[in-house]
Amino acid sequence: MTRVVIDAMGGEIGVDSTVAGAAELSLESDSIQMILVGDARLITETLGSLSHDSRRIQVAHSSPVSTDGTTKTNASIQVAMDILASGGADALVTAGRTDTLVAIATDRLKYLPGIRRAALAAVHPTEQRHGPKEDPFALLLDVGATQTATAEDLVSFAVMGSAYAQIISANPRPSVALLSNGKNLTQGTPAIQQAHEHLSRHPAVHFVGNVEGLDLPRGSVDVVVCDGFVGSVVFAMLEGVTEVVTDLAKDAYARKFLWRLGLTMLSQGLRQLRVMTDWRQYGGAPLLGFESVIIKADSRSNARAIRNAIRVANKAIEHDLSGQIRQGMMPVD
Amino acid sequence: MTRVVIDAMGGEIGVDSTVAGAAELSLESDSIQMILVGDARLITETLGSLSHDSRRIQVAHSSPVSTDGTTKTNASIQVAMDILASGGADALVTAGRTDTLVAIATDRLKYLPGIRRAALAAVHPTEQRHGPKEDPFALLLDVGATQTATAEDLVSFAVMGSAYAQIISANPRPSVALLSNGKNLTQGTPAIQQAHEHLSRHPAVHFVGNVEGLDLPRGSVDVVVCDGFVGSVVFAMLEGVTEVVTDLAKDAYARKFLWRLGLTMLSQGLRQLRVMTDWRQYGGAPLLGFESVIIKADSRSNARAIRNAIRVANKAIEHDLSGQIRQGMMPVD
Repeated sequence: MTRVVIDAMGGEIGVDSTVAGAAELSLESDSIQMILVGDARLITETLGSLSHDSRRIQVAHSSPVSTDGTTKTNASIQVAMDILASGGADALVTAGRTDTLVAIATDRLKYLPGIRRAALAAVHPTEQRHGPKEDPFALLLDVGATQTATAEDLVSFAVMGSAYAQIISANPRPSVALLSNGKNLTQGTPAIQQAHEHLSRHPAVHFVGNVEGLDLPRGSVDVVVCDGFVGSVVFAMLEGVTEVVTDLAKDAYARKFLWRLGLTMLSQGLRQLRVMTDWRQYGGAPLLGFESVIIKADSRSNARAIRNAIRVANKAIEHDLSGQIRQGMMPVD
Repeated sequence: MTRVVIDAMGGEIGVDSTVAGAAELSLESDSIQMILVGDARLITETLGSLSHDSRRIQVAHSSPVSTDGTTKTNASIQVAMDILASGGADALVTAGRTDTLVAIATDRLKYLPGIRRAALAAVHPTEQRHGPKEDPFALLLDVGATQTATAEDLVSFAVMGSAYAQIISANPRPSVALLSNGKNLTQGTPAIQQAHEHLSRHPAVHFVGNVEGLDLPRGSVDVVVCDGFVGSVVFAMLEGVTEVVTDLAKDAYARKFLWRLGLTMLSQGLRQLRVMTDWRQYGGAPLLGFESVIIKADSRSNARAIRNAIRVANKAIEHDLSGQIRQGMMPVD
């Protein structure tokens, strides 16, 4: 039985989506026990209007946050984190802000041995397929938890990303690369060069070298490692390509009929691709590095996305993600 | 009269393209005096077979570089740089390697007052149009001269990019932004935050704040500033999008007939877009920061691209790029 605590008041989504996601899942799975954290009256009311299995859902109360931002001590994410930190749950799911999540997690949780900084890992659509399931996406980390990463941090991100890809894509030996401005060991920042050296002889990581920006949409490798600043910038670009192509279709610049037609069709195709690999449906991004499992769902998640995020959390627990990372971080003589 | 010294042996292109580009231009413009640097016998032979105006082309000899790499002291880029440094020319054009160019320029040339690091600026296609000429591209810098930039460096890049955009796009007040992981002043690395503050009250830069990765293909602003590491990574991504869409069109994944059709048409459209805004035809990227004008042409430049690069160098001289930058860097009380 996996116990997942869920921040029911996080993000732009209302409590409705979160509660609905949990309610749906309670009818599907008998191996997940859920704790919904937020305004208890509101959650209980919402639950009452939905079909659900009440044996699988508990409610924990948190005071509403005041709108002037002065009394945040009892916010839902903090109560949920306390439950996780005290051992009342194995995993946490939230659609709240990344920076708040990282700050509170860093404050309340212990890092896994050898890890000094957290990493948020996100999937993005790629041209090439990955792993035995032929997933049309690859993993990128860090996309925003640790702005500036040392060589040591980058090595631990590689171990964590590899462990997560093994579980989530059933890929026994995911290829891992560092994002740099050239393929050579001598390119990249000093941190990247040093991480490259360490990873070249790392027993737990199938390190294939550096990749360049071009390799991200291509999907040349299964896991790409970079610091949080670079990761945020390029992830925003990857998200943006779909949007730009869609907009281009309407642009006066695309005057040629055939071209305009092509763009319109492509934008429909890309929409499908996006739907398929979207964070919102895929189920969120893991915040890696801590002893407990944390899944950050997109702030616009609907019920289905929340349900999937909880399932991803359960999968990570069932496959012992933390144990896998711990093993990967083990020093070798 | 602008005097442009041209490294005739740089890059992957043969001496033929370089000499042909110069020969073409000698018949078109009577305001440019060119000095071709390389194996004098080879250049003279090539020139002899092409129609050209011999009054506008001189040849300066450099010894061929040995293939084992031991005697590089007299390479064409070094001879060309010496001519530039000694005042024998106003501008330099090369299709050689960026890292070599930056190293030699840093060694031989003086920075403009207040500038401590060089920046390579490149144009990339955007959805939105820019300036009075409605250019379908924007300027990104640094894309690889200065890997890690301080706040002071970023501010000088903003001044230099703005000056260059004013000249090249005839845009009297180009909008300039810092590339970051969020729109807020509080986001980004410490260097970015500090540069943001300085630029907010900079008299010579029309600073509009931070942009995110998504804004690059969109083209929300005319000039985007970042350090050379981030710039190289994202520029490689921008270059890659076209390629990936073209490849996707052939991918078995695009099974749906309409989608495949759309992709095929789009890839043709993108090819046009690429042709139009390609470095190779646009005429190269300026290496900014030095007292002389330097234009780095793509290593695969053909004759036309070299001709255009020389014209860009001439335009930069005629519009006093260095003076513009100098003025922008002037301290205000």
